[in-house]
Amino acid sequence: MSASREAQAGVVQELTDELGADVVRTSDEQREAYRYDWARDPDAVLPLAVVLPRNVEQVQATMRWATRHGVFVIPRGAGSGLSGGASAQAGSIVLCLERMTAIEVDPATRTARAQAGALNASVKQAAAEHGLWYPPDPSSFQISTIGGNVATNAGGLCCVKYGVTVDYVLGLQVVLADGRLITLGGPRLKDVAGLPLIKLLVGSEGTLGIVTEVLCRLVPKLPEPATLVAIFETLTDAARAVVTTCATSRPSMVELIDNASINAVEDHRAMGLDRAAGAMLLIQSDAAGESRALELAAARAACEEASATEIFETDDPDEGAMFVEARRAVFPALERLGAYMLEDVGAPVPLLPELVGGVADIAAEHDLLIAVVAHAGDGNTHPVIVYDASNEDEKRRAATAFTQIMELALSLGGTITGEHGVGRLKQPLLSRQLGEDVMGLQHAIRKVWDPQGLLNPGAGY
Amino acid sequence: MSASREAQAGVVQELTDELGADVVRTSDEQREAYRYDWARDPDAVLPLAVVLPRNVEQVQATMRWATRHGVFVIPRGAGSGLSGGASAQAGSIVLCLERMTAIEVDPATRTARAQAGALNASVKQAAAEHGLWYPPDPSSFQISTIGGNVATNAGGLCCVKYGVTVDYVLGLQVVLADGRLITLGGPRLKDVAGLPLIKLLVGSEGTLGIVTEVLCRLVPKLPEPATLVAIFETLTDAARAVVTTCATSRPSMVELIDNASINAVEDHRAMGLDRAAGAMLLIQSDAAGESRALELAAARAACEEASATEIFETDDPDEGAMFVEARRAVFPALERLGAYMLEDVGAPVPLLPELVGGVADIAAEHDLLIAVVAHAGDGNTHPVIVYDASNEDEKRRAATAFTQIMELALSLGGTITGEHGVGRLKQPLLSRQLGEDVMGLQHAIRKVWDPQGLLNPGAGY
Repeated sequence: MSASREAQAGVVQELTDELGADVVRTSDEQREAYRYDWARDPDAVLPLAVVLPRNVEQVQATMRWATRHGVFVIPRGAGSGLSGGASAQAGSIVLCLERMTAIEVDPATRTARAQAGALNASVKQAAAEHGLWYPPDPSSFQISTIGGNVATNAGGLCCVKYGVTVDYVLGLQVVLADGRLITLGGPRLKDVAGLPLIKLLVGSEGTLGIVTEVLCRLVPKLPEPATLVAIFETLTDAARAVVTTCATSRPSMVELIDNASINAVEDHRAMGLDRAAGAMLLIQSDAAGESRALELAAARAACEEASATEIFETDDPDEGAMFVEARRAVFPALERLGAYMLEDVGAPVPLLPELVGGVADIAAEHDLLIAVVAHAGDGNTHPVIVYDASNEDEKRRAATAFTQIMELALSLGGTITGEHGVGRLKQPLLSRQLGEDVMGLQHAIRKVWDPQGLLNPGAGY
Repeated sequence: MSASREAQAGVVQELTDELGADVVRTSDEQREAYRYDWARDPDAVLPLAVVLPRNVEQVQATMRWATRHGVFVIPRGAGSGLSGGASAQAGSIVLCLERMTAIEVDPATRTARAQAGALNASVKQAAAEHGLWYPPDPSSFQISTIGGNVATNAGGLCCVKYGVTVDYVLGLQVVLADGRLITLGGPRLKDVAGLPLIKLLVGSEGTLGIVTEVLCRLVPKLPEPATLVAIFETLTDAARAVVTTCATSRPSMVELIDNASINAVEDHRAMGLDRAAGAMLLIQSDAAGESRALELAAARAACEEASATEIFETDDPDEGAMFVEARRAVFPALERLGAYMLEDVGAPVPLLPELVGGVADIAAEHDLLIAVVAHAGDGNTHPVIVYDASNEDEKRRAATAFTQIMELALSLGGTITGEHGVGRLKQPLLSRQLGEDVMGLQHAIRKVWDPQGLLNPGAGY
């Protein structure tokens, strides 16, 4: 929406009149609080207003109003996105579902019906109360919402064995751009009636509609895993161990943490990690009986073959959980070192050594600290470019490295984003991955759902 | 395409001139051979020609020609579809990919690159040569193609634990309606760059493009399963055992076979099944160690609670495989009893007893034999309405029952098709399941991909 400031204020007032000032927030402070997501996109601007609906009817009213006046809408969950997919835009409102948090578990159908604003952790908790498990576990699971997870098709640590968000969505309630409400799917494990629109929506980054409710598939709780931790002199050695491990078995977790990440975690909160380690590999097996022993033995052999300097195994779930916690602590720890750009590139698993080796070359070329953590078992890496934002030259070098890392991934037949989404920060490279024909199809599909182009403009594809 | 017979012949001749008479078949006999798929849709007509391309370039040439002349195109794999999705239509050609059967396995990335015409069984076989497994296993796996499996998002017996076709598609090569070729995905386990078009295409029943190549995800081969077979007096008892079993554990197979199916199999080929059994439940566990023992114990307890009259367990893989073979023999056996209409309805698992009970009521109401087999663990049932095609009254009653069974599934919050696809036979009920808003979105998306409406007209949504 582009109009004079007065006209804009009048338009916003119309929504306030309908939904009340408790739902439609317009103070500078409130708008500032919803300007950025975790990507801290420097191009984010103050939104016209922040709308905090309490129910689906208010979401519908908001979209009817937006359609009437041509107002851009930035859908938002917890704002924990890492690609700038929820950066506020000029002439936009932020439509944040954080108040819609109801969760209802049905153990009979093994499903959880969660409003979009419910935290991933809350869904897990509600499932656990019935002995059930909601697998998808982005590192952010304690702070990110199910709606946001659906928007990005969030992955996580366990997805190397248990899949990503889309694998656990059986149904969606979606408010269309014009305010109509549609319901897709249901507590049915198999359903091929019509085009699979649920699958199209998961990962669509808020560009096709506002997801207001998610019907999540739950599975029986699994046994506690055993954990193997291996230390390597170099990240490339550790990556080679990953390739060998994953060629023959299917562990429930394969996480890689480099030296810089280990030290950032130790600086932040001493956990007793080996500061001298070039890299640490964290492998878990939740298989039962002899399969578990076989998986761990295969992982150990792979680590030894890749010159691991130390290998530690434990069956104690708490001890294993401590290492997982250390892994999850990497981003918060790195955040304290300065500004950062977080990558999310992926490659076919056998090319993981080339990918992390190439990232090291880019870091050396630009004299930058690029820490690397990776969901290594599915080839998804998170190089984190740390830089001093007050140093213009370093900032420029960081931006160049950010692009070069994506180009590296593409040259290896990989992807510019494995689980965070394109958002706004990765958009410049997307057409190089997909090609113009595919981009054209995507734009045309977007137009079907959102003819006026109101939903999350500039984000995604 | 509607035109005079002479004009049509000229148009077809143009394609023959380009691709040769070996690729473009026009004899009455050849056209008749591709008129029907397994659904034997009575409305299928002779196609103008059958096109049997040997490579993707010939598929592209065919689509360019079809676009130029507005010729309808019915994509076809092995013609083993059960919903009439490949019935030839007036003014159409049948574009059959049965000659494009190349398969290339890459053990490093654990993928198989299969041309669309490769049989599912051939992909499984190629994977097995590398100690790998391609899980999706529709009952037709020995005769159906990967391309057809992708078109319908085929399920099968193992999908209760291992998911359906879409869960194993990492990439697609697709010829668009106008002949352009696009490539989607690659050997990357996680990739959220752009809209998930692969997921949209799997299950799109040949309405969005011609899938020419599929990049299949493979997984390590699993241990041989243990098998539990339970006999019940009634199908409803057996269904109750399924509900209890699946509420707490996740077996690798949960198949249900009713008395009529058992007797049809025994008539066809004596396998020593209990002809007096009201129903037989076939449960397998491929879990390791104590998990296997726990799963089997849970299944046994559930069967006992549901008044099983006999329970048999075996660790012998060959013995287990014999029961699975008996299950797979049901359709060929029932086929011999007369004409039939094959249902594919699903419901939430806890409502399985209501679904099979309702089917029995419908059978009684219309004095029809309706045999029932079910992938019971995911609520997907295949009632088979057997009738005498020469008896007009019985034929009418069968048709009424076919519709009523779909209505029953919808009344239980289920689906009219769990894994066979809508095709042409189930289309009349689709909008009642999806609603007009969703139908509208689907039609608009279809138009994006196929503006002239050439691809599989009348099939799907």
